[in-house]
Amino acid sequence: MSEFAYKKDGTKEYLTFSQNQSFLLESGKTFGPITICFETYGQLNADRNNCILITHALTGDSHVASHDELDVPGWWEDFVGPSKIFDTKKYFIVCSNILGGCCGSTGPSSINPETNKPYGINFPIITVKDIVNAQRKIFDYFNIDHIPAVVGGSMGGLQSLQWSVSYPNFMDGIINLAAPLNLSTEAVGINHIMRKSIMWDPNWNNGDYYGLDLPANGLSVARMIAMLTYQTRDLMNKKFGRRTKSNIGDFFSSFDAEFEIDSYLSYQGEKLVQRFDANSYLYFTRAMDLFDLRNEYGSYMKALSRIHAKFLLVAISSDTLFNISELRKARDILKLNGVNLEYVEIQSDYGHDSFLVEVDKYTNCISNFLSELNYAINREKSSEEFEYSTGNVQ
Amino acid sequence: MSEFAYKKDGTKEYLTFSQNQSFLLESGKTFGPITICFETYGQLNADRNNCILITHALTGDSHVASHDELDVPGWWEDFVGPSKIFDTKKYFIVCSNILGGCCGSTGPSSINPETNKPYGINFPIITVKDIVNAQRKIFDYFNIDHIPAVVGGSMGGLQSLQWSVSYPNFMDGIINLAAPLNLSTEAVGINHIMRKSIMWDPNWNNGDYYGLDLPANGLSVARMIAMLTYQTRDLMNKKFGRRTKSNIGDFFSSFDAEFEIDSYLSYQGEKLVQRFDANSYLYFTRAMDLFDLRNEYGSYMKALSRIHAKFLLVAISSDTLFNISELRKARDILKLNGVNLEYVEIQSDYGHDSFLVEVDKYTNCISNFLSELNYAINREKSSEEFEYSTGNVQ
Repeated sequence: MSEFAYKKDGTKEYLTFSQNQSFLLESGKTFGPITICFETYGQLNADRNNCILITHALTGDSHVASHDELDVPGWWEDFVGPSKIFDTKKYFIVCSNILGGCCGSTGPSSINPETNKPYGINFPIITVKDIVNAQRKIFDYFNIDHIPAVVGGSMGGLQSLQWSVSYPNFMDGIINLAAPLNLSTEAVGINHIMRKSIMWDPNWNNGDYYGLDLPANGLSVARMIAMLTYQTRDLMNKKFGRRTKSNIGDFFSSFDAEFEIDSYLSYQGEKLVQRFDANSYLYFTRAMDLFDLRNEYGSYMKALSRIHAKFLLVAISSDTLFNISELRKARDILKLNGVNLEYVEIQSDYGHDSFLVEVDKYTNCISNFLSELNYAINREKSSEEFEYSTGNVQ
Repeated sequence: MSEFAYKKDGTKEYLTFSQNQSFLLESGKTFGPITICFETYGQLNADRNNCILITHALTGDSHVASHDELDVPGWWEDFVGPSKIFDTKKYFIVCSNILGGCCGSTGPSSINPETNKPYGINFPIITVKDIVNAQRKIFDYFNIDHIPAVVGGSMGGLQSLQWSVSYPNFMDGIINLAAPLNLSTEAVGINHIMRKSIMWDPNWNNGDYYGLDLPANGLSVARMIAMLTYQTRDLMNKKFGRRTKSNIGDFFSSFDAEFEIDSYLSYQGEKLVQRFDANSYLYFTRAMDLFDLRNEYGSYMKALSRIHAKFLLVAISSDTLFNISELRKARDILKLNGVNLEYVEIQSDYGHDSFLVEVDKYTNCISNFLSELNYAINREKSSEEFEYSTGNVQ
């Protein structure tokens, strides 16, 4: 299609929207050109109706799973693949790096064609709605006008919510793991502290650090703060206790002496710096802060009554970032506004990270939800099965 | 007494230990000279047995309350004064700025007489035991060999625990508000992140920033992180919700636009920078990390079986820093080791800060505990009352 430029490089696919086609942001600004990087798994069927969109969380990317045995594992490796929950023998899985990101899609680290330099903080403020609108273009490119489901956890869950309201007729089901209707005061505050940590790193240099020293310390502190919100107090006690990496004597000579939890956190900070852009961290945390469907629609009623899809909301009992009380509130408000809702609470010791690591706990509820969706692919499959049973396949 | 130099300046009193008297730290190093700044309230009685020591928390100081109506309020204003819980008509209250501090006592910002420059990180690593041993000198100066009670919350509670074990015959009662037997993995991790934030601020300059630009950003981030641990999610939701300081439009032009929680946190960060030394923050958080009576005594049994004092342990139901489960564990271990323990759980919405702000909830349990202590001052008072009732007072 002429409005897109398409490129494939290894397992990554890149879709660039035509510059002539202005991309209108929620802020009212237009922005472009935009490239969205995505990866696909499985085959799009002839009726183009077996696609599931997986949306990623704050520091995720399009590599949701390995493409074959030689490929590196993805961030949801246990969930996506042949015969897994998101069965690539059945579904055509799409996972895109989101707008504003740093793993192939246009973001603050991308080159601004007007200046030939990275955008930095000249990249526009974006919202979850903008992220979703950009994702939507992938389906225009594939000429897909309806999909079985949009799935996401955490910031991906916010995207799934936005999808359900922005494009209510586009999907049969929404699977939102661990995301509330908006961020709590505390979560907004945490995001503020993390951004301050990055922006106060002198290397941040007003966002203009590409090719120079990175704001590594600021981003590390942000990541360390975040890590504590993804796990539970009890789990950390169990994993690290009060064990030290250094000898007790070393604690009396230097602040460099560390407990095991200290080393673990520092390591997680360093690891993120290797793979993630500090400016993207700023834009994404701000997008999360601003996410509130009432801003666009005026009320939850006006927003949520738009939803046509069957909706699976999954809460994690021990989540300290997006607390179970917030998820129950989301459940109540979704139900109140007529959403066809299935609500599940996962009993977990892992906290927010549960949806990334405890695949067994999610298998039943997601698989059942998918199998109960009344979407076109099922109807077609039934007829295939019928043909098979009557011996017509040979 | 010749081993001390004493000075009074307004309401602050300063005790400097003689340089000839080596002050042995838990690390094995000797350190000096040491000055401890303290404030006193009420009158020491003739028998020198009506003193209560109040120990302060992480960023506290000796100014626990105002000295008169013209004085500025102290950090525990509602708790300390005439006819208050700690009744200055009855008790001689002592509150000292602790060793390592920045409000009068010797700490990293003090001048090292050997170099005529501030110690900075040449200040030795200190422990809660060192802090307590330095406090103990105040009583040598006053020639006080026994006191009714040592009282403290949070880091002050750790000091009260150390007092009960280091000087078991010195007091009749210990009042520990909201402090566990040691810091959880999570609390150690939080302290690590806060120190990194300070030490990665280029203005920190390896601790040598006095007279130069302060590591204000690093300390601000640390304080903002800490603030979130002192309150509850629900309270913050109630106080700030998702209200914004800036217009929504401003959020689309700059990261400077703020939610109310953002402004609140930033303000708290700035306020601490005005009054607190970043190096003291490093030394105190490390002292808290290292606090574990098993290090010195080998086991809880050996440490806690030393305690003679009656012990009041107060836990806060909603405390997210020092969780109720940790306080219950402390209760069990103290009881198991024969401590004469009274344990109270305060039902609060305030979180860790409760012990600073909800005086009404602490009045009964502390007052009753104090009145039931069988200390010398009570015996004497009884005899006074007896004399009064027989008409001998005229």
